[in-house]
Amino acid sequence: MRIVADENIPLLDEFFAGFGPIMRLPGRSIDAAAVANADVLLVRSVTKVDQQLLQGSPVSFVGTCTIGTDHLDLEYFQQANIAWSSAPGCNARGVVDYVLSSLLVLAEDQGVDLSRRTYGIVGAGQVGGRLQAVLQGLGWTVLVCDPPRQSIEGGDFVSLQQIISDCDVISLHTPLDKAGEHPTHHLFDAENLGRLRPGTWLINASRGPVIDNAALRELLVQRDDLRAVLDVWEAEPSVEVELAALCRIATPHIAGYSLDGKLRGTAQIYSALCSFLGQPEQHRLEDLTPPAWLAQMHFDASVERDWLIGSLCRAVYDPRRDDADFRRSLFADSAQQRAAFDALRKHYPMRREITGLEVSFAGPPSAELVQALKALGVVTRQAG
Amino acid sequence: MRIVADENIPLLDEFFAGFGPIMRLPGRSIDAAAVANADVLLVRSVTKVDQQLLQGSPVSFVGTCTIGTDHLDLEYFQQANIAWSSAPGCNARGVVDYVLSSLLVLAEDQGVDLSRRTYGIVGAGQVGGRLQAVLQGLGWTVLVCDPPRQSIEGGDFVSLQQIISDCDVISLHTPLDKAGEHPTHHLFDAENLGRLRPGTWLINASRGPVIDNAALRELLVQRDDLRAVLDVWEAEPSVEVELAALCRIATPHIAGYSLDGKLRGTAQIYSALCSFLGQPEQHRLEDLTPPAWLAQMHFDASVERDWLIGSLCRAVYDPRRDDADFRRSLFADSAQQRAAFDALRKHYPMRREITGLEVSFAGPPSAELVQALKALGVVTRQAG
Ligand SMILES: NC(=O)c1ccc[n+]([C@@H]2O[C@H](COP(=O)([O-])OP(=O)(O)OC[C@H]3O[C@@H](n4cnc5c(N)ncnc54)[C@H](O)[C@@H]3O)[C@@H](O)[C@H]2O)c1
Ligand SMILES: NC(=O)c1ccc[n+]([C@@H]2O[C@H](COP(=O)([O-])OP(=O)(O)OC[C@H]3O[C@@H](n4cnc5c(N)ncnc54)[C@H](O)[C@@H]3O)[C@@H](O)[C@H]2O)c1
Repeated sequence: MRIVADENIPLLDEFFAGFGPIMRLPGRSIDAAAVANADVLLVRSVTKVDQQLLQGSPVSFVGTCTIGTDHLDLEYFQQANIAWSSAPGCNARGVVDYVLSSLLVLAEDQGVDLSRRTYGIVGAGQVGGRLQAVLQGLGWTVLVCDPPRQSIEGGDFVSLQQIISDCDVISLHTPLDKAGEHPTHHLFDAENLGRLRPGTWLINASRGPVIDNAALRELLVQRDDLRAVLDVWEAEPSVEVELAALCRIATPHIAGYSLDGKLRGTAQIYSALCSFLGQPEQHRLEDLTPPAWLAQMHFDASVERDWLIGSLCRAVYDPRRDDADFRRSLFADSAQQRAAFDALRKHYPMRREITGLEVSFAGPPSAELVQALKALGVVTRQAG
Repeated sequence: MRIVADENIPLLDEFFAGFGPIMRLPGRSIDAAAVANADVLLVRSVTKVDQQLLQGSPVSFVGTCTIGTDHLDLEYFQQANIAWSSAPGCNARGVVDYVLSSLLVLAEDQGVDLSRRTYGIVGAGQVGGRLQAVLQGLGWTVLVCDPPRQSIEGGDFVSLQQIISDCDVISLHTPLDKAGEHPTHHLFDAENLGRLRPGTWLINASRGPVIDNAALRELLVQRDDLRAVLDVWEAEPSVEVELAALCRIATPHIAGYSLDGKLRGTAQIYSALCSFLGQPEQHRLEDLTPPAWLAQMHFDASVERDWLIGSLCRAVYDPRRDDADFRRSLFADSAQQRAAFDALRKHYPMRREITGLEVSFAGPPSAELVQALKALGVVTRQAG
């Protein structure tokens, strides 16, 4: 079996060398000639995979190590009987870590107790669903708005208007849909933004145009009670500098950029290929993941719960690093600014997820501490 | 032997109960009647200890768990043959941790490499001397200005003007002296401030009036290339809100407020009393110090040196917490602001020193990592 793959896919050899020879190419150089003899094609978002690329090739499986599939012509795949897989949710945990650490920054700024806030999650899929589980696991109050899920599952969902009227913190995790039954383009338009409660924190790490950016800028100029955290921008890589300046945290679409997320993307298409081929999986992601720089933290069992939560989240990731790097890149010249946006994403520094961190205690931890660790998803180890 | 002591001295029983009964009082309530039968008096800075208090009492030893002695009438002690001790340097390490973590914040903001800066330390006593050792231990370039030491020791000191002309970072650690051969009142006046190099970081955690605060405010309004970190204020507890707003980090005289520093103060006067009495010491500070909440961090040996340094310093102390608390307290009403300044100091949250943290590695750490840990003063433990 011959594999053609984007050279930027991590752990390519470790996962796929057993299937046969791998031809590695820059994603943008993968063309019809390159795949003419390939059975399997592995890509990232920069390679457009359609009839033009695949026609006449023996490719029977396409894997993309990304959550999005905009670059795949799925209709053609169906016609041509080509199996495919993406990596849904691979970077969801990274976004959850980003949101948690942003909450800690805002709480420190304002001296508020995070456990007393009401959280609104808009869109409870891979990211929003995980965020919901963490926040509820910490014992915090969470309202969820997800009309597509609600129409299928029924259950405990609320309307967007209830989120806006009842929540102190609103975090957006929908796809970008311009049409359809539940469009999300400008879901937060001037009208909805104008309804935000005094002191609301608004977090967007979904897609930029889910918020009307011009309306948000106007609002933030007028209302200094609000706090905005933006990882995504309506016209990215173009960023409106004035809006960024008004945000408490501003970052260049890196919320999900953990190393673990990237490796998980490879592991997910490896699993999909194994199951397509009817073969058992030989490799496990845990065995191939490099050790995190920070492997373990050891606390005294007397530690305060909030201090523990803050220590763990910040030790793994503090968005103020990325915020500072991003702000320095907001040049007046817009071409430079756009180039800097892409460069910051391309040369993103090492970041791991909190779920890889081991925590141990001197003395038996209280039930309250154990529950917090379980909610955060860290590995609790018996102290030696 | 009868002891009268300020009730706010920590570990009083643990260290002193063996000497005899302890009468504990609020520091401001210690009067002549209270000490009429006391042999030993243990105070903090709020108790004025002079002839009026002690005359006619059997007090033969006065200990103050503070670095300052302004509240002790040392001349009278000499006349009356009363032994005394203060706790020089007890909180010096806390100030070093504060300066280190402030440097990390500034470096993150500006994306600069701390190892490429030139550091100027003005006043190299308990605090400045320790800071010098840490920075030099990390391999960084440090210039030191300390005319009193220079006149005694000779050696590698530079002038204040050389500090100003050659350093990217200037950290002040002198006492406040209005007169004498080397006065420090307004050592940084409008003229010296005006000479600061472009982009200088100026840190003051010594005494407020060492910098002319009005001149600094003027300067910061004009020059946005400079960054100021102020822990002390010319008229504290009154703080000029406009100046605080212009500082990158602003805190209410808490740089040295670690728990370890407070306990060390008690231990130092205990040692002094033992040696005054010619008795061996029975108690060791290490045995009486409560465990730190964060006891140990375990890293992979592949960790980058700068990332390691940042992780350790921040995990122990990040001044942005105190900065945020302080900024919220800068009320328009000046009486409220002054009360808040004192309240923040009085109800200061738990903080430990980096020297209490244990660090271990998976795999053998490089010489470079070992050297950094040694410079920081953390305890390196063999991995289990
Ligand atoms: N910033 C980053 O680095 C980063 C990383 C990962 C994902 N994302 C983005 O985050 C978003 C969520 O990603 P995901 O993987 O969880 O997607 P997902 O498809 O798993 O979940 C999206 C959820 O939104 C719900 N939804 C759809 N329309 C809605 C509406 N009008 N109102 C409320 N809910 C609605 C869907 O029912 C679904 O449950 C996407 O936009 C994705 O592109 C960003
Ligand atoms: N912010 C805080 O929480 C905190 C905590 C501890 C100490 N302090 C303050 O920090 C300062 C230093 O404390 P320390 O314990 O290191 O004192 P120290 O007496 O041990 O050291 C002071 C040093 O400054 C030198 N010095 C005196 N005049 C000088 C001048 N004109 N120019 C340069 N150097 C001069 C002295 O020779 C001495 O070496 C003091 O003002 C102290 O009150 C503040």
